[in-house]
Amino acid sequence: MTRETITHRDGHVYEFGPQMDPVYEAADGESLTVETVDSLNGEIQADDDLLDAIPEEVNAATGPIAVAGASPGDVLAVEIEDVRVAEDRGRVLTAPGFGLLQDDPEIDHPATRITEVESGGAAGGDAADSGAETIDFEGIDVPIEPVIGTIGVATGGETVSTLTPDDHGGNLDTTDVTDGTTVYFPVFQEGAMLALGDAKAAMADGEMCGTGAEIAVAVDATLSVIEDPAVSPDRPLLDTDDAVKTVASAETMEEAVELANGDMLDLLAHDHGFSRTDAYLFSSLVGGLEVSQVVDPQVTARNAVPSEYLSLPF
Amino acid sequence: MTRETITHRDGHVYEFGPQMDPVYEAADGESLTVETVDSLNGEIQADDDLLDAIPEEVNAATGPIAVAGASPGDVLAVEIEDVRVAEDRGRVLTAPGFGLLQDDPEIDHPATRITEVESGGAAGGDAADSGAETIDFEGIDVPIEPVIGTIGVATGGETVSTLTPDDHGGNLDTTDVTDGTTVYFPVFQEGAMLALGDAKAAMADGEMCGTGAEIAVAVDATLSVIEDPAVSPDRPLLDTDDAVKTVASAETMEEAVELANGDMLDLLAHDHGFSRTDAYLFSSLVGGLEVSQVVDPQVTARNAVPSEYLSLPF
Repeated sequence: MTRETITHRDGHVYEFGPQMDPVYEAADGESLTVETVDSLNGEIQADDDLLDAIPEEVNAATGPIAVAGASPGDVLAVEIEDVRVAEDRGRVLTAPGFGLLQDDPEIDHPATRITEVESGGAAGGDAADSGAETIDFEGIDVPIEPVIGTIGVATGGETVSTLTPDDHGGNLDTTDVTDGTTVYFPVFQEGAMLALGDAKAAMADGEMCGTGAEIAVAVDATLSVIEDPAVSPDRPLLDTDDAVKTVASAETMEEAVELANGDMLDLLAHDHGFSRTDAYLFSSLVGGLEVSQVVDPQVTARNAVPSEYLSLPF
Repeated sequence: MTRETITHRDGHVYEFGPQMDPVYEAADGESLTVETVDSLNGEIQADDDLLDAIPEEVNAATGPIAVAGASPGDVLAVEIEDVRVAEDRGRVLTAPGFGLLQDDPEIDHPATRITEVESGGAAGGDAADSGAETIDFEGIDVPIEPVIGTIGVATGGETVSTLTPDDHGGNLDTTDVTDGTTVYFPVFQEGAMLALGDAKAAMADGEMCGTGAEIAVAVDATLSVIEDPAVSPDRPLLDTDDAVKTVASAETMEEAVELANGDMLDLLAHDHGFSRTDAYLFSSLVGGLEVSQVVDPQVTARNAVPSEYLSLPF
């Protein structure tokens, strides 16, 4: 089978909802390439391109892609094989009313820094000897460790902006969503309707200023349907190969970590035959809670358990 | 100089306050050993020892230890060289009204699981080949990675239980507070008055059920005074050798991560000559926010920046 390439020019969305019209129908098990534009549609190209407000159309997600055979109650597995930056610069920025420290009077809102892509780490720094690609932040080399910020499926009912994360995925801004990770989504609608975009060349856990180094990417992924899953997730799950992680979004971090921990207990109880009490006690000993982002309309957290203690049931 | 050993029998506290009477006066730069009892004073020794409520006297912290020459405005550096478990079992437990999922009707509150210390990982699992010490949780070997849960200094004014974390340290329940890490505290009172206890043989980030595997330990540490620090921290800092981390406690996780990120900007701006805006943008690209614990009277978060991007100014 020829590998299909789906680009943002083929189709993109600014909302996830229950009814989504696919731009492509993938076979179950198909491997394809998805090309995305940066979260700001290429409008920020220099340090003096400033974002006076968050645009109404932000985080364009390429797709949706229907997956043949995916039905409500199934799980969609998105195996991310490679993420390549697809332009010569990223951009990290602040905007008024956005970001963790939006009320700090010593921080400029808006502000933009272009992060040029460099090869071989010429400007010195940690990645200098590796020959790997880096971005440059004011003379500091930062290795490119790309993150797919927005990735999700059609929702169970509500229609939400691609700026918002929830049980369908969406703007999860989770550093683990990168090459080598398989992301699992609950399927809410026929065909699942995967869409993704909003990538970063690098991003801190938390995404404090409101962005990473926003950049266009090309993603190689394989899409598979899991029917009759032994555990039915309510929210996205990750398998990074090193760890299994539950991912939950909510209005407060306290609510998000409670959901992520509760979801993890379901997996630990299933895998080990633990009571829910023993799963809870065990969850308090290994891995633990992690911050995805604290800046979107809902915040996102995860609960990680190292792979030596937990295998997913699919 | 003979290495002094200070034990919980020599003296321990259940509160950090502005006036603390030292059980020992250390020289600036002195290396000593501190022995601690488990957070529940040895009262939980079997699975049917249940904790019906959090005791009034919990988290006994051995000390306080005065450090000669430490004065308000200085920084106390506690270089943790080794942490050894000092009994044959730990205990992980729930108690009514305590823990992230205290309202989950399928979880028993109270519940206790004793975690026996084993050598060489005889019961199988990840640590089996390492010969390292492990604890056993219901047949699963978990490597011993000890954590000092409570560590702090005399406060600027308030008197708080050793169950509460704040700017003086206290119940930080931070997995990085272990061997190889240097913890830096702002000095609020003459002598600094270090006290520590509440160790765990293993703990997840988050400490979801309210405890790790609580255990007695012996800690080797060197205490040093830093006068006229180039940056004056308001809260504890960590240097794990891999990363520099700010640590902040507050009523909500949102407040805690805001404080931790703000503290990190001070360090990045000083080290790189960045504006506060550039420090903020850079903080959104590398390392990031981490969860220490979400179960104590205040929650604790940290902001990590890898050591290749940040050196502490002392």
